[in-house]
Amino acid sequence: MRKEISMSNLEKIGQRAAAAKFELQTLSTEKKNKALRAIAEALQKRGNEILESNAKDLKIAEANGMNSGLLDRLRLTKERIDAMAEGLVQIAQLPDPIGEVLERFDRPNGLHITKLRVPLGVIGIIYESRPNVTADAFGLCFKSGNVVVLKGGSDAIHSNIAVSTVIRETLAIEGITQDAVCLITDTDRQTANALMKMNQYIDVLIPRGGAGLIKAVVENSTIPVIETGTGNCHIYIDEDADISKAIPIIINAKTQRIGVCNACESLVINEKVLDKALPALGEALRANNVEMRADESVRAILPDCVSATEEDYGREYLDYIISMKTVASIEEAIAHINHYTTGHSDAIITENDEHARMFLERIDSACVYVNASTRFTDGFEFGFGAEIGISTQKLHARGPMGLKELTAYKYTIEGNGQIRE
Amino acid sequence: MRKEISMSNLEKIGQRAAAAKFELQTLSTEKKNKALRAIAEALQKRGNEILESNAKDLKIAEANGMNSGLLDRLRLTKERIDAMAEGLVQIAQLPDPIGEVLERFDRPNGLHITKLRVPLGVIGIIYESRPNVTADAFGLCFKSGNVVVLKGGSDAIHSNIAVSTVIRETLAIEGITQDAVCLITDTDRQTANALMKMNQYIDVLIPRGGAGLIKAVVENSTIPVIETGTGNCHIYIDEDADISKAIPIIINAKTQRIGVCNACESLVINEKVLDKALPALGEALRANNVEMRADESVRAILPDCVSATEEDYGREYLDYIISMKTVASIEEAIAHINHYTTGHSDAIITENDEHARMFLERIDSACVYVNASTRFTDGFEFGFGAEIGISTQKLHARGPMGLKELTAYKYTIEGNGQIRE
Repeated sequence: MRKEISMSNLEKIGQRAAAAKFELQTLSTEKKNKALRAIAEALQKRGNEILESNAKDLKIAEANGMNSGLLDRLRLTKERIDAMAEGLVQIAQLPDPIGEVLERFDRPNGLHITKLRVPLGVIGIIYESRPNVTADAFGLCFKSGNVVVLKGGSDAIHSNIAVSTVIRETLAIEGITQDAVCLITDTDRQTANALMKMNQYIDVLIPRGGAGLIKAVVENSTIPVIETGTGNCHIYIDEDADISKAIPIIINAKTQRIGVCNACESLVINEKVLDKALPALGEALRANNVEMRADESVRAILPDCVSATEEDYGREYLDYIISMKTVASIEEAIAHINHYTTGHSDAIITENDEHARMFLERIDSACVYVNASTRFTDGFEFGFGAEIGISTQKLHARGPMGLKELTAYKYTIEGNGQIRE
Repeated sequence: MRKEISMSNLEKIGQRAAAAKFELQTLSTEKKNKALRAIAEALQKRGNEILESNAKDLKIAEANGMNSGLLDRLRLTKERIDAMAEGLVQIAQLPDPIGEVLERFDRPNGLHITKLRVPLGVIGIIYESRPNVTADAFGLCFKSGNVVVLKGGSDAIHSNIAVSTVIRETLAIEGITQDAVCLITDTDRQTANALMKMNQYIDVLIPRGGAGLIKAVVENSTIPVIETGTGNCHIYIDEDADISKAIPIIINAKTQRIGVCNACESLVINEKVLDKALPALGEALRANNVEMRADESVRAILPDCVSATEEDYGREYLDYIISMKTVASIEEAIAHINHYTTGHSDAIITENDEHARMFLERIDSACVYVNASTRFTDGFEFGFGAEIGISTQKLHARGPMGLKELTAYKYTIEGNGQIRE
């Protein structure tokens, strides 16, 4: 037990969060859903208050020379507040995962053992400048019975305070502990680093943001981390691919939304179909302003490609750029992809069932596709209703994380005086 | 991708392990079981070779003044080698978790999604001076399709080399990559620290040993860790307890085996049953040589108790010592236990169904008991057939970890040209 005469703000927040988790764990589904709907309504009713705070953040960010892409992420509008509210209403409509009986078995000695789904406890979320994460992350954590401790970026601090104030005040009206959501208002790096060591209060940490943020959390946290959202996603055009399927899938996966983790970043092409596939594929990529970085075999057919370096094959561009690599066989394709993938989503285009089976079995990624766009790796597209992120690690959860992935389990063991021999 | 002109031994081991995981992931159940049985036989056949190496370790340890308890952990005998072999045969008899279909669902756009159980990949095990862990950990990781990287203590290095050599040579005879088990023979602390940062090769790290080892791994590892085996387990004697059940359960949980993580370390007693419970309980504990460290209310009835400090309530003694705390209500008992528990196993003794329900629902531990000994928190006792440890964290696995808990899952998504709108 830690005892300090003068406790920091962070320490106090940790204690409040840990104390609140016992109330959250036993909240009824009805009470949680009613609160989510009330908060959705309050966010809309108090939209002006939130927009005024957001205007402060925007003014400071503009004065600091923030670029237009980041300013857009930071900006709230009436429509975006409506979308936040609608997100909470949707979460209220999802089934409550808590209390689900996962297994039940009796032992020969008469013990009744039940494996039950329970909340993780306290979830820490470290994120950057998107104020909508404040409401989204709260909604998912709250519905799954978890307290959430939020640490947003300094750029969005006024917006985050406004949103979390509306949530906390509405929780109080609903007779629920306000500490279901705790916002850390110190946005400096030292506070973030101290947060990552608060194992006594926080059960899991989920970073949401760019590769730099995620790396910093993985390297510094002593709390278990769920790594999300780095996607060097591949599409492999097999020797038995239907090229008329391949091209629309590749264009969709690469260009439908370029800045997302499930976008395609690399093409792997069997040498037997280079002649057949490349002219039309090159044309389609060019028409969509995609820069191609390719090896020699591809460049022999598409001379306008940039020469790919080894580094290109490991990159998540999040841009109108794609790398292209020629292979001699499906085995070589699988080895190349397993070497360079971030374990997010990889696809094969083939009409050959045996090749499809090999690819599905051997590619070591969260989501492995046959004849479909990698863009489907998404909680909504999987039917989970919402997601907190896409896990790229092996432990606990892999791929799209919905409400169930924000839970743990416990065993209850009921006896009648049993002792161990 | 890391590139260094001169790679260390550790780096080479990491690369070999990561390369081997693709073979392990697709090994058939038959091939795995046949290899496990062959290794069991080889361990027995080559027992003398192992005992000779163990004798070297024992000689060095004795010369270094190792105490008798630790020497006993380090010592192998013919019987202990037989037990290691028997453990592998038992693992061969367990169902193979790999390939199990966990969920299967179709989406409105025609995508077929399957959630499949797959190996974690490469599991690192850091352990102390028990050479039997070398065979046990290999057996569980191998059957669940994982490569295991082992880092044992320097005291057991000759024994660990001998055991892993038998395993590797038998794997080669069975036509399976020897790198299914990789032993790190550098036993210094720098190597251990470097191992804990090898995220590019190792998927999960499981420390097996004392609290100091586990703390060091949690604090230094950037690889996801599964924390195991710290148990400050409580038994609460409710106001509606059947004392004739309580006493045998407490004696069993405290004294059947004192050095284990599921032993009881602390009693919590409702003040309404102090007079009824304590005289017989005190006598039974005294008869088993258990030192009692208690608060004032208990000491008023059992004057031979030592006075408990606040620190006592947080301790895992692993010894013939128990702490005792009086509470006024079940609510106070639950709050006390949730504050001091390590989240391993806690029990209530009661005939009151409502109190049992409250306790099961509100105690935030991996295993929560009614009227049974905490000693049942064990993979064999749960019917899992074997265990790699007892997880005390929330992420991934909680409580006894058998073969299933050494697996991850992946999604396969089969389409026919689907793209995202």
